[in-house]
Amino acid sequence: MDVGGELFYAEHFAARAGLVTDVDEVLYDRRSPYQRITVLQTPAFGRMLLLDGAVMLTEWDEFIYHEMLVHPALFLLPQPRRVLVIGGGDGGTVREIVRHPSIERVDVVEIDAEVVTVAREFFPAISAAFEDSRVQLHFCDGAEFVARAEDASYDAVIVDSTDPVGIAASLFGEAFYEHCRRILVPEGVFAMQSESPLHPVFRQTLPTVHRLLRRYYRYVSTCLAPIPTYPTGVWSFTVASSRWDPARDLQPEAAWQRYQRLEGKLRYYTPELHQAAFVLPVFVQELLSSAS
Amino acid sequence: MDVGGELFYAEHFAARAGLVTDVDEVLYDRRSPYQRITVLQTPAFGRMLLLDGAVMLTEWDEFIYHEMLVHPALFLLPQPRRVLVIGGGDGGTVREIVRHPSIERVDVVEIDAEVVTVAREFFPAISAAFEDSRVQLHFCDGAEFVARAEDASYDAVIVDSTDPVGIAASLFGEAFYEHCRRILVPEGVFAMQSESPLHPVFRQTLPTVHRLLRRYYRYVSTCLAPIPTYPTGVWSFTVASSRWDPARDLQPEAAWQRYQRLEGKLRYYTPELHQAAFVLPVFVQELLSSAS
Repeated sequence: MDVGGELFYAEHFAARAGLVTDVDEVLYDRRSPYQRITVLQTPAFGRMLLLDGAVMLTEWDEFIYHEMLVHPALFLLPQPRRVLVIGGGDGGTVREIVRHPSIERVDVVEIDAEVVTVAREFFPAISAAFEDSRVQLHFCDGAEFVARAEDASYDAVIVDSTDPVGIAASLFGEAFYEHCRRILVPEGVFAMQSESPLHPVFRQTLPTVHRLLRRYYRYVSTCLAPIPTYPTGVWSFTVASSRWDPARDLQPEAAWQRYQRLEGKLRYYTPELHQAAFVLPVFVQELLSSAS
Repeated sequence: MDVGGELFYAEHFAARAGLVTDVDEVLYDRRSPYQRITVLQTPAFGRMLLLDGAVMLTEWDEFIYHEMLVHPALFLLPQPRRVLVIGGGDGGTVREIVRHPSIERVDVVEIDAEVVTVAREFFPAISAAFEDSRVQLHFCDGAEFVARAEDASYDAVIVDSTDPVGIAASLFGEAFYEHCRRILVPEGVFAMQSESPLHPVFRQTLPTVHRLLRRYYRYVSTCLAPIPTYPTGVWSFTVASSRWDPARDLQPEAAWQRYQRLEGKLRYYTPELHQAAFVLPVFVQELLSSAS
């Protein structure tokens, strides 16, 4: 058009620096009891899901986030059967979990039922995993759910949360981590998104999380992946276990055999990449060393 | 401020999707005979250098680009002595090269002398390497320089170019690569920035480059690094050699000994990260397999 307005969306991680995109259409934009939920149709990223204005996923690059949140944790376990997901109301994390044939049960604890409703309407390919008979949705607070859950009842706990403020703040605190450890079997694995190591504010999440998790697990390791539509474009995932060293205890041959048997085809993760992703740049090593 | 205008900069890699930032001050903005050169002062990224509107570097994240363009190539060589840099008028690439004590001579071929003048004025910490007595600046066309250079006269050729259009197009063509091979010693190493594997247009650079380089080198490998202020936030670097396999021929112990003797401290690269950076995600492997 020559004259007239156009809609665009921008998410800033610092003094109005960040991601910008044209918006073809606002498909959904309403406030739930917990947050503002927005779905945009964009030319570059396909559909985008925003919570309180922050990018949760885009159709273009969500595969990287969801594969790297799930597979580094589940491939450490010889046979993951029972998995708890805190958050993850869009379904992408569950989609990756149920690719593992050994999975028997996935409990998904999402505080905001409207996120799931929106995902089912606007992201059917991503939320389809919720229809898997092994998946049980619970609409309640994640911190309360883990406080009530039985000891040693999960092989893996995966925290797919928003940023460590507002409704997600309780998912970054000591009480939450303590319950997660309690409800995991002794050889279980804990995994969480741990923000960007380059973010001017949230980069401090990483050393904080390490300091807390080291109280409960022998091994605490962080891997990185590029996620273009997240603030700073690079993201961290932290994996902890008292039985398995996330960066070293992947058995290459066994992992490749299991990789071939996954349901569907991955687009980012491989067992070889698993080991590589835990090798950290100097500046991230230094950020983590500030945790001790 | 409550009312009034504010300046911001945006670089789009697709339908106006990309990077946006506030601009505190435009420090420089002129057209050279070759391109528009702009220096911005920004709150999030410090100073930014733009060529024809595209980000060349920011003070915030240039270390990642320059370290990953240079060190994967130079650490493959037991003793790099003579290095040719094509482009790189800001000085960041040369700064990384001269950290290696074995370096005897660096020829830098920059087509646009005004880029160097601007770098000396506005990025003194980055361009300071030009004052190193081992460095020789040549203001001429890179493709013409390599055509005139003597056979087997360099241990490494490093191409620090802009995108494969306009004045840099000749640096992505067969004739240029053929001359680079000719002027390298037989056991030499070639390295170049090879664009983003997620860029909607320039992602095709990667398979094209692989197809061409395989005519001249036994080994052609690509590594990745996050560069938040470059389009899509993830970038590729391609390294080629007929003697050294870039992904496998780093000798860990020898590399660590040399790493300790570098001038100054790196913030991204380590020998362990070298090997990890060449392990590619599935979607990049697939992009490269389209080259054969």
